[in-house]
Amino acid sequence: MKQLLVIGIGAGNPDYITMQAVKALNRVDVFFLLDKGPRKDKLIDLRREICAQYISDHAYRFVEAHSPERERGAVDYTASVDDLNKAKQRTFERLINHELSDGQCGAFLVWGDPALYDSTVRILQVILASGVCAFEFQVIPGITSVQALAAQHKVPLNTIGRSIEITTGRRLAAGQVSEADSLVVMLDAEDAYKRVDNAQTEIYWGAYLGTPDEILISGRLADVADEIERVRKAARAEHGWIMDTYLLRKP
Amino acid sequence: MKQLLVIGIGAGNPDYITMQAVKALNRVDVFFLLDKGPRKDKLIDLRREICAQYISDHAYRFVEAHSPERERGAVDYTASVDDLNKAKQRTFERLINHELSDGQCGAFLVWGDPALYDSTVRILQVILASGVCAFEFQVIPGITSVQALAAQHKVPLNTIGRSIEITTGRRLAAGQVSEADSLVVMLDAEDAYKRVDNAQTEIYWGAYLGTPDEILISGRLADVADEIERVRKAARAEHGWIMDTYLLRKP
Ligand SMILES: C[S@@+](CC[C@H](N)C(=O)[O-])C[C@H]1O[C@@H](n2cnc3c(N)ncnc32)[C@H](O)[C@@H]1O
Ligand SMILES: C[S@@+](CC[C@H](N)C(=O)[O-])C[C@H]1O[C@@H](n2cnc3c(N)ncnc32)[C@H](O)[C@@H]1O
Repeated sequence: MKQLLVIGIGAGNPDYITMQAVKALNRVDVFFLLDKGPRKDKLIDLRREICAQYISDHAYRFVEAHSPERERGAVDYTASVDDLNKAKQRTFERLINHELSDGQCGAFLVWGDPALYDSTVRILQVILASGVCAFEFQVIPGITSVQALAAQHKVPLNTIGRSIEITTGRRLAAGQVSEADSLVVMLDAEDAYKRVDNAQTEIYWGAYLGTPDEILISGRLADVADEIERVRKAARAEHGWIMDTYLLRKP
Repeated sequence: MKQLLVIGIGAGNPDYITMQAVKALNRVDVFFLLDKGPRKDKLIDLRREICAQYISDHAYRFVEAHSPERERGAVDYTASVDDLNKAKQRTFERLINHELSDGQCGAFLVWGDPALYDSTVRILQVILASGVCAFEFQVIPGITSVQALAAQHKVPLNTIGRSIEITTGRRLAAGQVSEADSLVVMLDAEDAYKRVDNAQTEIYWGAYLGTPDEILISGRLADVADEIERVRKAARAEHGWIMDTYLLRKP
């Protein structure tokens, strides 16, 4: 049987890696690296560094594959993600069938936690159900950017006994969020926090969390929204890309 | 200055500990262990074992304190948690003022992640704001039971582009949850999943996740709710206590 591991490597700080992940890394024969173009080179390098640092004396190799990208500006978001996942599925099938022999262990290193806005686990389940490849797989959790955000701002995610909603910038902008008093927003390409009309809402914003480039801003939305927009724009221009997330807390 | 660390140790598997947490453990002079009565002894022992396993050659000591407990059956849940937190606050103040000298580093080892349904960070912020004690503190994230649940069931927490709501059994039972198609329920003392009336809803249930006693059940709520109730009751009787959490997914 082929073995696959989906290993969460944490979202930013290389020290976010767990002992479970370190043990898992040391069982892997082939690492599949999905390259997402030049602006994501840093993330590929980080994965290579993690392997170099934590694998003691097990021989391993990397297989790089081009990762299909979602069609930007597509009208139907879910359909475009679906298309993307079908393309990724074919890539995964090719990697599993051609780059891994029986008895070997392959791995995908996932940014943050594989359970949060990542398609790797979903795609592997689809492949398994389709019967195109046979393998066993295991998932290893990792520290998410949401946890990094809360830790760096030293705030709890929830208020006492209440709910937390984790959502996307797209849904916030479209008014598709609930009344939860704690709202975590990820994947925000459009400064959706500016649409929140309760000026008493507090925001805890963080970019490049856990990395040397980390930026933290917090305060009443009315006081800091403009600053966040400015800093965000400048950071994106400087780095060529941004990853940021934030917690909104209603009073 | 006194230093305090709030260290997430992960929710179950000792291997959930991160490298960041291991490095933090090695800076600590005094560990504060809050004892919650005999049924939680196992959790205190686990903390001692983690220290023994990961601290190399730094001298440290444990200070045990009795942890106040919430008044069960109180009518107003938030008020009873508030009272509890005030009592905890006095315990924390005493520990920080009397058990830690200037320049020393103290630590609280928090189950799972300190940001999720845990009062340690909130209480330290209140103490700091009150000026009763002076200290610096840092928060170190840990793998939550929610992540353990998703990893062990090999499912993503969200569906494509949609929200996730994390909530309590109490809120689910009271009908206080949103329309999110992915709902994670924690702190459920009353089998609240039985109140969900959409029989097509899938449930991914896990108890004692990450430990040798782990139990996983999943399926359509209509098919497995009775089984979960039975297994849960038997497990609670056998262990004297239970910790379980589940993901509900609407079709
Ligand atoms: C496709 S999702 C993947 C999330 C990842 N699986 C996790 O557990 O954090 C990417 C989004 O995560 C957030 N993100 C990831 N890493 C981040 C970091 N270091 N700092 C801030 N936000 C981050 C951003 O909102 C980004 O748009
Ligand atoms: C007070 S909350 C603390 C949560 C913790 N900070 C975390 O990050 O998971 C306690 C609740 O967490 C859940 N929980 C904690 N550990 C668990 C485990 N190993 N298995 C299943 N549920 C767990 C249960 O729902 C329990 O009622």
